[in-house]
Amino acid sequence: MPVHLTAPDPAQLHPVAGVRIGVAEAGIRKAGRKDLTVLLLQEGASVGGVFTQNRFCAAPVQICRQHLQAGAAVRAIVVNTGNANAGTGDDGLARARRTCDALAGLLKIEPAQVLPFSTGVIMEPLPVDRIEAGLPAAIADAQGPHWARAAEGIMTTDTVPKAASARAVVGGATVTITGISKGAGMIRPNMATMLGFLATDAAIDPALMAQLARELADGSFNRITIDGDTSTNDSFVVIATHQAGNPPVKALDSADGQALKAAMLSVARQLAQAIVRDGEGATKFITVQVDGGQSADECRQVAYAIAHSPLVKTAFFASDPNLGRILAAVGYAGIQDLDQTRIELHLDDVHVATRGGRHPDYREEDGQRVMQQAEITVRVHLGRGSASDTVWTCDLSHDYVSINADYRS
Amino acid sequence: MPVHLTAPDPAQLHPVAGVRIGVAEAGIRKAGRKDLTVLLLQEGASVGGVFTQNRFCAAPVQICRQHLQAGAAVRAIVVNTGNANAGTGDDGLARARRTCDALAGLLKIEPAQVLPFSTGVIMEPLPVDRIEAGLPAAIADAQGPHWARAAEGIMTTDTVPKAASARAVVGGATVTITGISKGAGMIRPNMATMLGFLATDAAIDPALMAQLARELADGSFNRITIDGDTSTNDSFVVIATHQAGNPPVKALDSADGQALKAAMLSVARQLAQAIVRDGEGATKFITVQVDGGQSADECRQVAYAIAHSPLVKTAFFASDPNLGRILAAVGYAGIQDLDQTRIELHLDDVHVATRGGRHPDYREEDGQRVMQQAEITVRVHLGRGSASDTVWTCDLSHDYVSINADYRS
Repeated sequence: MPVHLTAPDPAQLHPVAGVRIGVAEAGIRKAGRKDLTVLLLQEGASVGGVFTQNRFCAAPVQICRQHLQAGAAVRAIVVNTGNANAGTGDDGLARARRTCDALAGLLKIEPAQVLPFSTGVIMEPLPVDRIEAGLPAAIADAQGPHWARAAEGIMTTDTVPKAASARAVVGGATVTITGISKGAGMIRPNMATMLGFLATDAAIDPALMAQLARELADGSFNRITIDGDTSTNDSFVVIATHQAGNPPVKALDSADGQALKAAMLSVARQLAQAIVRDGEGATKFITVQVDGGQSADECRQVAYAIAHSPLVKTAFFASDPNLGRILAAVGYAGIQDLDQTRIELHLDDVHVATRGGRHPDYREEDGQRVMQQAEITVRVHLGRGSASDTVWTCDLSHDYVSINADYRS
Repeated sequence: MPVHLTAPDPAQLHPVAGVRIGVAEAGIRKAGRKDLTVLLLQEGASVGGVFTQNRFCAAPVQICRQHLQAGAAVRAIVVNTGNANAGTGDDGLARARRTCDALAGLLKIEPAQVLPFSTGVIMEPLPVDRIEAGLPAAIADAQGPHWARAAEGIMTTDTVPKAASARAVVGGATVTITGISKGAGMIRPNMATMLGFLATDAAIDPALMAQLARELADGSFNRITIDGDTSTNDSFVVIATHQAGNPPVKALDSADGQALKAAMLSVARQLAQAIVRDGEGATKFITVQVDGGQSADECRQVAYAIAHSPLVKTAFFASDPNLGRILAAVGYAGIQDLDQTRIELHLDDVHVATRGGRHPDYREEDGQRVMQQAEITVRVHLGRGSASDTVWTCDLSHDYVSINADYRS
């Protein structure tokens, strides 16, 4: 059961001028499943992306990086589910290229103007013939801004489609931001791949797109964790179609740039948090906020130590205020000169630990009350400085083991 | 069910001259449980120790470090279960000191000659009065080398007591090595604490003991992982009683030093691996061997990435040869210039992946066959150099979640 997450209302997903979306059933792994999605971008759109740091990155990730570095104007994005085209060597690269060639041929653009994305089983050959056969239907379907269908089209074992939308005023014009994501659900046999696509009709200097993608990912997708595993295919792509009529944003730290980035970040965070809320077997949504660090980096390091600890995560699943486990994770997070006698710990509003020990007023039933909630904030103060950082995670339940231990047949 | 692990046969645990052991029921957390163990060392023994890197280390760990640094000749070790005396601030330090004072008073030695160890619930005051009351009985019991009873006395929720013993010839004399360990089992509410005590009757320059403890831990306790969490109380202590009649070992890299170290390492490894075999909910014992690295450090880094991955661990639990998960863990282990096209992967004798992709001869049923075994070796070759390293771990099962999610009542 996802934590406070329901399917998006299509009426709430604002169209982004300059983006058409089509979905088809290509039978990539199973018949009768929407498994092929195209996003077609009007001429003049610009694109930035960030990709998995996994050195075992999938073939489509390698092709995306090449195409973005080559600097050709991206006009199409193609996403298949059912097969991740990862761990497939040179043959996988060739098949990813054939996907781009096929879509480029149908759209009369260059292959380098296509970005391919794949998610699904790994170490199996991509059935590129089925993708080629399915592309005409996906293109034919691309008559409108089918964001809700795209959110379904990129799902693997997500239980809920993930999409979000917002509007903001930038440079006197109303701009629209809409995006979709998938993740956390496994398509057996695979690790969870996170994909995120965020589009705006705002105008922005194309040279800023790579930096915009990086900064948005840092504030959203790079702050979530289900189990600490990083997929071979994780990707986050930002699209600007320049249709809103705003004066082009020239710098991200300008007033217009900040307004646009803030609105985009709020959508990116919803998309990223939706992945955690739909995490495998998740029953709780946990915000881990670390304050009082010497740097944001060390705060994030502590936050991730807590968020990745299987002992902490099972305690949340059990609604057990087993708070020593949180303190222990703080202790092994890798800050060499951490002074344990300065650590403060809150669970929501409950002051649990002070100066590294149990708070004298702390009562177990107060911790218990917070732990039973579906949404919980863990707040650690390191007492070393004024930096902060936050990550989002979920608990570790029996269902996580069941989902991931399930055999693939 | 522990993996290929049974209780030690007391007859196989050789006495170590100069070590007497006593166990008592002090009622520290529950009545009728052997929860207080003392190891009494003959005058002239020397001791070295390594302790948790967790910055939230427990009070007894802090006291042990102080006493070893002060250099007083250690004459007694006291271990209580039921309470970890961690997260207890200055009051915890005072209670750990009181434990040392009490034992020193009874034995007519200095408090600095006592090393205290605690394992159990954290963030609760150590019931030092019960320890004081129990010590006379433990001392009275210390009439012989009760290694098997000590292995039971330091258990928390371990399902099997852990002890091992060996003999070797060093400098023409037969020396004995016997040790005990506990770990992995949780005493609610706590993280798993690993404790290891290893004694030999060999003579060795006391100045070498700290280095010996470090090197033995590096080859044994520092290479095992259940869930990646590091306890506040983890400790490993090496004792030499100088009773065997060998010429004292003057250097660890001398012929005598190497012979002694090899024999001690084999016992330390058995003790460490026993903790994994009795890991919470463990059904498989996994050896992760990484070869072909530029350094042993990077090999260990990759081995730990595999050993910590919840996705890999659940696949082992399911006997599912979901080998992409292993490759993905290799990819995110943090080697920036890793070339995925050089990676080779074996499961026991089955060549699964070559040049980063599925091996052409690999058949799923071969992987399946290996995955169904209770003991499995994962062998990764990085193709970057000639260094190697190995870690040992277990799978992640439903029982892990059950054990750790169980409420403490």
